[in-house]
Amino acid sequence: MKHVKLFIPGPIEVSEKTLQAFRSPMIGHRSNDFKKLYAEIQPKLQQLFCTTKPVYISTSSAWGVMEASLRNLVSKKVLCCMKGAFSDKWLDVATRCGKQADKLQVEWGQPITPEAVRAKLSEGGFDAMTLIHNETSTGTMSPLADICAVVKEFPEVRLIVDTVSSFSAVPIDFDQLGIDVLLTGSQKALALPPGIALFALSDAALERAATLKDRGYYFDFVEFQKNGAESMTPSTPSIGHIYALRSVLEDIFAEGIEARFARHTTTNQMVRDWAKSKGFDLFPKPGYESLSLTCIKNTRNLDIAAAVKQLREFGFSIDGGYGKIKDKTFRISNMGNETPDTMRELFSALDQVFPNP
Amino acid sequence: MKHVKLFIPGPIEVSEKTLQAFRSPMIGHRSNDFKKLYAEIQPKLQQLFCTTKPVYISTSSAWGVMEASLRNLVSKKVLCCMKGAFSDKWLDVATRCGKQADKLQVEWGQPITPEAVRAKLSEGGFDAMTLIHNETSTGTMSPLADICAVVKEFPEVRLIVDTVSSFSAVPIDFDQLGIDVLLTGSQKALALPPGIALFALSDAALERAATLKDRGYYFDFVEFQKNGAESMTPSTPSIGHIYALRSVLEDIFAEGIEARFARHTTTNQMVRDWAKSKGFDLFPKPGYESLSLTCIKNTRNLDIAAAVKQLREFGFSIDGGYGKIKDKTFRISNMGNETPDTMRELFSALDQVFPNP
Repeated sequence: MKHVKLFIPGPIEVSEKTLQAFRSPMIGHRSNDFKKLYAEIQPKLQQLFCTTKPVYISTSSAWGVMEASLRNLVSKKVLCCMKGAFSDKWLDVATRCGKQADKLQVEWGQPITPEAVRAKLSEGGFDAMTLIHNETSTGTMSPLADICAVVKEFPEVRLIVDTVSSFSAVPIDFDQLGIDVLLTGSQKALALPPGIALFALSDAALERAATLKDRGYYFDFVEFQKNGAESMTPSTPSIGHIYALRSVLEDIFAEGIEARFARHTTTNQMVRDWAKSKGFDLFPKPGYESLSLTCIKNTRNLDIAAAVKQLREFGFSIDGGYGKIKDKTFRISNMGNETPDTMRELFSALDQVFPNP
Repeated sequence: MKHVKLFIPGPIEVSEKTLQAFRSPMIGHRSNDFKKLYAEIQPKLQQLFCTTKPVYISTSSAWGVMEASLRNLVSKKVLCCMKGAFSDKWLDVATRCGKQADKLQVEWGQPITPEAVRAKLSEGGFDAMTLIHNETSTGTMSPLADICAVVKEFPEVRLIVDTVSSFSAVPIDFDQLGIDVLLTGSQKALALPPGIALFALSDAALERAATLKDRGYYFDFVEFQKNGAESMTPSTPSIGHIYALRSVLEDIFAEGIEARFARHTTTNQMVRDWAKSKGFDLFPKPGYESLSLTCIKNTRNLDIAAAVKQLREFGFSIDGGYGKIKDKTFRISNMGNETPDTMRELFSALDQVFPNP
């Protein structure tokens, strides 16, 4: 089967070096070899999360840690900020976990604003809030720092931030922003295979967790803390992913974090420019476009499904739109290891599939 | 770093072929490529589980599905059969999930007997039971078929069976035994890297799940069923593991299931013979010894930790005993791809570390 390079918003292309690390021979997960591996990557993970706290590794998709955050932090009522397919789902998941939940909902493509958060939290009764920084379904990025500042006005509210598709593509300072749970997946900008999620916890998050019943075992934050202190995970982890993560961290710090952010900004601008050159608008409200993936409005009313299919013949995969905006939009990722050169390879193929306006 | 071959009871050695499959380039998890992969392995998984039901793939360790089973099936009270470190933990996890739980506990090394199960279930009030077929910490295997027959006498009781370290090493017929949840991990006899768990569900299990609140999303059995019907998983799965699983299934059916079982019986007997030749007894009650790993009693009072350490110099890793029987026992796995020849390589090294009696 001919390889099709992924420019969908996750999973994305994984480098040969990372795949080689991924397939390392196994070691015992309670062995000194494992503890050494775990401890070795901690400082780099902490630097990437901008935190002095430990960074935890969950063998699950990011949804596992999202659910964990609800089970570990919501005692009274959670406010779910909804602006697209994934953030909308939080409310449903909260209810399924038996939690009281309310919503702050905006149209797909609109951001969550600090003002709206303040107004809603002021209604009272909330002790947690969920926010997706970069809504992957709509390519819309909400103003994280401003929202975090507002949440700080409500000391009882623990802030759960999902940075699945923005983490490591844009700066996110866990300690400075005062986030309580910062979580991300592996198969987005980190350019790892899917299968693990990473997260950091504030002291307040752990204190809250310790008081909650029914948080279970597999996703119990207190268990992660306890085992993490001994450079281990509560349950058998996906060891291959941790080797791969070590490889990715090497690459990130070899490039330099700032250079990495700048590269994502550059490649993202290239996608926006390409879209405009083809006569398309962007889907998100101007000023709130994601820097890691671009959600393009199908303003020309082309057959997106056919275009996506045709593009595969050229060896590239982009996404034909998610959920209710399928076909009305399409999405191109610039996450991970892409450079201006590799983006140009994509555009050459795209140009053959999307006619000039 | 020199590679140390694993004869610990999980993770175990993964073949080069499987590791190559594990590191396959990524595909979208909602793509036709993925659905094809998922659908392709289903018939082989069903044959291995001896079931006409779908087999589900969870991106988690087996503990994730153990917790899932409690959240999805326990409405009234669960009976936890306890006979070692892992089965003992079920009771704690059940309580942490907010479930009413009671125990049937025997000494480590003793099996769970059908008679004891009948006596305990007869007390009434139970609607689920957990059983670890092959307790990995003590190398003790309970008589699964006889226990299943007893549980059938209690139609309200959903039977959750953990076959983490016996699955694919000994025959287990899901449909015939009338099990409600049969679950296993990847890093034991299946010889995959850790990171996924596999499970099958009876109709009664799914019916019960549908009536329970608070089962969440990530481990919701109904979501697995719904997504599985479309050859997908509820959340982004570990795609590398599924490629690796396909590779392992090829190997299992190329060898033949019966031949595989026979090979495990042969290699297991070799471990028992080696232990006896060195003057050791086996830890489990005679007649209940595991066929996939051997828990050896340190009857000669040797320094097990030192022996385990020394063995690593020869390139092999065995386990120095788990929890409260650490040093008092040690464990050797014959799970996965080991043959009489590869076992003999291990014994040559063991002979240099363990003096004759």
